Amino acid sequence: MTERPIIGPNPLDPRLTRSVSGRDHTGATVDLRVVEERPLTIFLNSQEVVTAMTIGDYPEYLALGFLRNQGMLGPEETVTGVDYDEELETVVVRTASRTTYEEKVRKKTRTSGCAVGTVFGDMMEGLEGLVLPDTPVRTSWLYALAHQINRMPSLYLEAGAIHGTVLCHQDRPLVYMEDVGRHNAVDKIAGWMMLEKADPADKILYTTGRLTSEMVIKTAMMGIPALASRSGFTAWGVEIARQVGLTLIGRMRGRRFVCLSGDHRLVWDADPELVAEEGSRHRRKGAQDE
Amino acid sequence: MTERPIIGPNPLDPRLTRSVSGRDHTGATVDLRVVEERPLTIFLNSQEVVTAMTIGDYPEYLALGFLRNQGMLGPEETVTGVDYDEELETVVVRTASRTTYEEKVRKKTRTSGCAVGTVFGDMMEGLEGLVLPDTPVRTSWLYALAHQINRMPSLYLEAGAIHGTVLCHQDRPLVYMEDVGRHNAVDKIAGWMMLEKADPADKILYTTGRLTSEMVIKTAMMGIPALASRSGFTAWGVEIARQVGLTLIGRMRGRRFVCLSGDHRLVWDADPELVAEEGSRHRRKGAQDE
Repeated sequence: MTERPIIGPNPLDPRLTRSVSGRDHTGATVDLRVVEERPLTIFLNSQEVVTAMTIGDYPEYLALGFLRNQGMLGPEETVTGVDYDEELETVVVRTASRTTYEEKVRKKTRTSGCAVGTVFGDMMEGLEGLVLPDTPVRTSWLYALAHQINRMPSLYLEAGAIHGTVLCHQDRPLVYMEDVGRHNAVDKIAGWMMLEKADPADKILYTTGRLTSEMVIKTAMMGIPALASRSGFTAWGVEIARQVGLTLIGRMRGRRFVCLSGDHRLVWDADPELVAEEGSRHRRKGAQDE
Repeated sequence: MTERPIIGPNPLDPRLTRSVSGRDHTGATVDLRVVEERPLTIFLNSQEVVTAMTIGDYPEYLALGFLRNQGMLGPEETVTGVDYDEELETVVVRTASRTTYEEKVRKKTRTSGCAVGTVFGDMMEGLEGLVLPDTPVRTSWLYALAHQINRMPSLYLEAGAIHGTVLCHQDRPLVYMEDVGRHNAVDKIAGWMMLEKADPADKILYTTGRLTSEMVIKTAMMGIPALASRSGFTAWGVEIARQVGLTLIGRMRGRRFVCLSGDHRLVWDADPELVAEEGSRHRRKGAQDE
């Protein structure tokens, strides 16, 4: 019944974790596996955009998804290449013609000198006129997803200190990405969706992190109508979710959850009394970053 | 025995949380308190530097600490004013003369157009030649700190979805800051230290978040020789801590912890067998963001 996702974390990849020696509370020497964290500089054509700190898997997805979620790479752009250079720690995303973002940076440079301030404004801009589809979300799916995701192989269970985001279809996890920053994990999923031309309308996004404005904006930018998490909410995250009509479900623990936006999509088809409470190992996995 | 810190979170401040209505797993209507998250744009003189997402308390500390920790405001600069405008959501930090950072931005603008890429480089630059003092860290202090911090009034216990960072002297918490981003909580402490001219040499920094490169760099920039957390490590965080000789203690849970850097400062003066294991409420508080 528990199917493997199409793409999932590979806890055995030697590039993603490292064994480090230290001393424990008794003074004894211990070896611990810790996750890697390396810089990756993303270019849009010849424009350097940002240096992200990442575990380093799926750099192409990360670059594409980041640019898309920031509104720097619109759906109208034709991507002609995504070149990852492991040695230089760079990804260059190439488009057929100069993007609106590059034009803006060029103009902005002439006036105030730095384009940092425009990024957030552009993200909200990308949400104007957005209509998310009214796909139903069954509570039985939410319980099934939490159950499966908590048991999947992951770097979290191996080394801790990492966030997970999972793209789901109904009760089935499809793509599970992990990263030191939860925004990176989401961006990698966005990049995968772009390259696979995946339809967002019938998807649910699951995250181990908090439901902040940033997470809500990214989910909406991806066109996904529902975002679920075991962690909590911020007020602005809720406000933006309500503005764009996104279904926002948080504090999923065992049989409990709270929906603070878009409950018109929810179908209460599961009897909470029949949902098992969780063991402590899985409680830990989900509790990250609340 | 448990003294109140000099400055701590104020869970009752109506500006920091909001009550939001939603529906729970049974379909019943529920009210939930959620933390605020608002933009704050930081200026260094006339140069716009960044827009941070923050809960909004202590904006002046946040601005000062951010600029200091990013290496944009050196110890040699004379701060002549810190002006917070609640309506515009801005803080302007003014210095007696133009800062090196502003000069760099001006030069960079003429060449490649955006200064984003320099930020990280400058942070590492600020660590060159840094020598952290060999102040001892007693394990009995670590246990005492964890015990007190877990029981302090906090927005986390009130509304969740928030990080805490605590400046400590030996076994005593001095300043407890919370924010939606753990980097903001640390920056607010750095700002407080600047204004109070607090000596970092005999301090320990405690965070609820993960021990990433960013957290290690900020702690070192502040001149604090020890950083402790209940959460886990990243490989690069450990590597930088070892380079600068910072004591890095993670996975503090009840009697257990692991030290992956700078264990020469540790004095094992407590018998772990005598340290009580924790109740589930406090376990939750600390588990945030692992």
